[in-house]
Amino acid sequence: MVTVAVDANGADLGPAEVAAGARAAAGPDVRVRLYGPADQLGEPGDGVEIVDAPVSIAKAPEPAAAVRHTPDASIVQAARAVAIGEADALVAAGSTGATLAAGLLHVRRAKGVHRPALALPIPVPGAPVLLLDVGANTEVRPEHLVQFAHMGAAFAHQVLGVAEPRVALLSNGEEATRGTPDVQAAHALLAGDGGRGIAFTGNVEGTGLVAGEADVVVTDGFTGNVALKLMEGVSSTLVRAIRERAGGSPRAAAGGLLLKPALRGLRDDLDPEAQGGAYLLGLRRTVIVPHGRFTRGGFARAVEVAARAVDHDVTGRTHAALQAAGALRRASEPAATVPDA
Amino acid sequence: MVTVAVDANGADLGPAEVAAGARAAAGPDVRVRLYGPADQLGEPGDGVEIVDAPVSIAKAPEPAAAVRHTPDASIVQAARAVAIGEADALVAAGSTGATLAAGLLHVRRAKGVHRPALALPIPVPGAPVLLLDVGANTEVRPEHLVQFAHMGAAFAHQVLGVAEPRVALLSNGEEATRGTPDVQAAHALLAGDGGRGIAFTGNVEGTGLVAGEADVVVTDGFTGNVALKLMEGVSSTLVRAIRERAGGSPRAAAGGLLLKPALRGLRDDLDPEAQGGAYLLGLRRTVIVPHGRFTRGGFARAVEVAARAVDHDVTGRTHAALQAAGALRRASEPAATVPDA
Repeated sequence: MVTVAVDANGADLGPAEVAAGARAAAGPDVRVRLYGPADQLGEPGDGVEIVDAPVSIAKAPEPAAAVRHTPDASIVQAARAVAIGEADALVAAGSTGATLAAGLLHVRRAKGVHRPALALPIPVPGAPVLLLDVGANTEVRPEHLVQFAHMGAAFAHQVLGVAEPRVALLSNGEEATRGTPDVQAAHALLAGDGGRGIAFTGNVEGTGLVAGEADVVVTDGFTGNVALKLMEGVSSTLVRAIRERAGGSPRAAAGGLLLKPALRGLRDDLDPEAQGGAYLLGLRRTVIVPHGRFTRGGFARAVEVAARAVDHDVTGRTHAALQAAGALRRASEPAATVPDA
Repeated sequence: MVTVAVDANGADLGPAEVAAGARAAAGPDVRVRLYGPADQLGEPGDGVEIVDAPVSIAKAPEPAAAVRHTPDASIVQAARAVAIGEADALVAAGSTGATLAAGLLHVRRAKGVHRPALALPIPVPGAPVLLLDVGANTEVRPEHLVQFAHMGAAFAHQVLGVAEPRVALLSNGEEATRGTPDVQAAHALLAGDGGRGIAFTGNVEGTGLVAGEADVVVTDGFTGNVALKLMEGVSSTLVRAIRERAGGSPRAAAGGLLLKPALRGLRDDLDPEAQGGAYLLGLRRTVIVPHGRFTRGGFARAVEVAARAVDHDVTGRTHAALQAAGALRRASEPAATVPDA
């Protein structure tokens, strides 16, 4: 039996939508414990526990400070429940910043991990590509990138079901000599002993990222965040331009109408809700961050992914993989600072 | 009368296609001097000079070394013609790497410029956005980003005809405190005296880049290159997916057919040839790098853009703008090294 703590505050459609999704995912093997305004979360029972936690810090301008100073916030209560073992994993639908901060402060970094990273499955036609870091760490060192590679590979294999994930570094050229000095250093480490146990395939460029040339693509949180927002921007700009043109003339409008079912199929292919959201990797327990725009289907999927991560002991296996590759942070190294949210 | 030196080697469609484009752009005010295999460039006359330069280094694996060791290469001869004043600007259709190297070695950096940058007009529906650097400098310092801002603004205003270009930094958040320390430092400089004379509007995210939130977007060459390749990748992946689906059923195929003229209009909106290619800014003379895939229309446009840059003295005005903002490299500062190609 797996228990997933779910923060229901902060989602665009409100706590009731998150609760509906979580309920759908609850069952004989998965219990959910909902944190939010109890009057919007429905009745307990059937694997659903309700914790009345109406205080939300999802919109707080300084998430780290809000987490420290708002112990009764729903995200803080949910993260503490995971920290003390009352729940096995955390799903937080609200703000990424607050979830990161609560995760770091309460769930805490896994032993030997420099920095947690935010991993997002990019909806590429065919199979999704796991991109990390998409924004938890603006600056990283080569050894952080090496850890991200192992964290991403373990998650892709154990949770997303990729048999042997191909892992690549995002760079401005495919050759090992391309990229910033940090990317080049990470490349050298991963091509050597630091890549033991994973299928490191070298660098991919921006085109390769969306062409499915790798299953896991590793980058720093600055580049990853720019890339993520850019993909969203290009997709929506293109789709909007096509839609406008499809309405431009009666002939084109008829064409757009006839194409609609086919395009709906494409949208399902690319549905970000299907993957449950982003995954915060490198903490002691699994933390899933569904997008605030999700509907109940996406929140249900997030709970299922979290439960699967617990079932497959992805945190334990990640630790073993880092150890086998000699990529664990040594006790003598300085502890990482809290990354940007 | 403006003279544009054109390297005709290296384009996908061959030297004759480049020559045809250059010829179309020649006229009473613009003379072109074509470098390439004379037997493929047609007859001289009507403002067209032919220099037989059959040696191409467009495919050389190490462009910088090739430029140094192949004095008779067409790109080297064309760059030298610009350096000694036989031509006023350079258009090179072949390899970006060789053009960068030849530009640095022969045309040379403009006085007071740290690093040249490669600027590319991104075809966003509406008005194009000038993104720089898209790959000339993998690593940059804040004062380089400040210079890029002025170089891009001057080009957008003088050559692309943007009345008062809005200039922004690409970052992982809109707040001044977001981004790497270098991006934050550049933000502080541009928000202060270093931004004198330009309309600095702060940070844009990846979404803002393609939403046309700024006319000039400044970043380092690593991030810029990843962004550029990603935009290309997302566009072609989406278009391919839509096309496949449009052929999936008779109904959808009919829809695709009806939509075709409208989509052709979109393609014209987004036509990269319309802007003439990428612009190498920060050298003593203007250098334009049309894409090797261009047809004659794109090469003609590249020559027109180069001539316009000369007419409007964009290099002189860029220098004046950098001086007015106190952003020129001081003689006491170390000369920049040759950037990556």
